[in-house]
Parts: sequence; structure tokens; C-alpha cells
Amino acid sequence: MSPAFESVLEQLKFNDDGLIPAIVQDHENGQVLMMAWMNRDAVIATVETKRCTFWSRSRQKFWIKGETSGHFQFVKRVAVDCDMDTLLVWVEQVGAACHENYRSCFFRDLDESGLTVNAERVVEG
Amino acid sequence: MSPAFESVLEQLKFNDDGLIPAIVQDHENGQVLMMAWMNRDAVIATVETKRCTFWSRSRQKFWIKGETSGHFQFVKRVAVDCDMDTLLVWVEQVGAACHENYRSCFFRDLDESGLTVNAERVVEG
Repeated sequence: MSPAFESVLEQLKFNDDGLIPAIVQDHENGQVLMMAWMNRDAVIATVETKRCTFWSRSRQKFWIKGETSGHFQFVKRVAVDCDMDTLLVWVEQVGAACHENYRSCFFRDLDESGLTVNAERVVEG
Repeated sequence: MSPAFESVLEQLKFNDDGLIPAIVQDHENGQVLMMAWMNRDAVIATVETKRCTFWSRSRQKFWIKGETSGHFQFVKRVAVDCDMDTLLVWVEQVGAACHENYRSCFFRDLDESGLTVNAERVVEG
């Protein structure tokens, strides 16, 4: 690991659980696909392997996105915000980002009248 | 408030501090501008007033984005994710979203060689 990358890792503000939120965005059309959490090792893996890797809070384990579903996220670019407490990752998304089989996890709009589904499920094969 | 909106507020998963992360995206070009945190009142204000409103964790106060800087975020659309624990807000951004005067808070790319500034500061007036 380069000293510069190591220095950034030192500066990143992980929360009390050792996690930092990562927004994942389609690199071609800008669609925000999901937000998930990374620990230090997941940040390193994401940058070095160029596959989105997270820490699953529900399963309490290291999680290479797509490992079981095939819905990998190939990393095109990563950015860090001004406060060093949030990451933005531009990806090439294979299939659906959402476990409910929508391309984006943000498939419901919210307004004063409640929720409205704004997308259709990805049909495969 | 409509019963449907109230029901969504009940379903939203606020963290132990009573906050939910909100990703803010430019509604025209898809640029992700920032991520900030909302408490229940801030979600209500954002949806009802159509101006992004947050809870400032550093200042521990209700925060109408742009109130002091003039850099308002006019809300075009709001979405909620599959897990009901993250919001996505599409906005018309006035000026710069970032307090460092970049349009987006994500003005530095991160790779194995460290950080690289990817944008120029917004020049005003």
C-alpha cells in the first residue's frame, strides 16, 4: 500500500462501529443505486480489487457485493467528501443493485401522500 | 399530515441518535452533492417545505441548508431505499453544496496513490 493511500485511510472518519457510509452510483447514467457501509478492510479491498466490498451490519461480515448473486459492482472511481466521513463510488453495475431485484434500492418515491414505486424489477435471462 | 406519510415516518429506521442519512443529488445532471443526516422533524420539513433540512451533528441543531449561505437546495423528489434506512433527495442546488465552496462535497478522488482534487471551486458573482 502506498504511504499516500495509508495516510488517507488514517484520515477517514469511521464511526464508533468502525464503519463509513459509501454511496454507490452508476458511472454511466448517474443513478444512485444503494448506500452501504465499509470498514477499513472493505475500503482497501474496494480500492485495490475494484469490486465494491462492504461490511454487512445485519450479517456482521465482510461482503463482496455480487459474490453470491453475481450482481457485482465494478469500481470505476471513488471519491471522498470534505469531512472525510462519506465515500462515493462510481460503478458498472451487473444486474440489480437491490436484493429486491430493482436496479436501485431507491425504488420508492416519498411525498406527503406516502410511497409510490418508481421503477420496475429487473427481469433476468 | 396524511396518514400515509405518518405511516412512512413510523417505518423509517432512524439510528440510535434518531437520525437517517440523506444523499443529495442534482436533479438535472445526477451529480451527488453531499450526504447529511435528518431527524424526524427534518424529514417532515424537507418533504413539506421542499427545502433540504437536516440535523447538524456537529452543531446539534436543526439546519435549513442555505439558511445562512444562500445555497438552498430546492427539493424536486425524495426516495427511500428498500431497507427504509436511507433517503435520496433530488434537488435544484443554488451555488455550492459544499462549505468549502465546491459544487459537490465529493471533490477529491481516492485511489491507491491517494487523493486528487477533481473539481474547481465555484466562483460567485
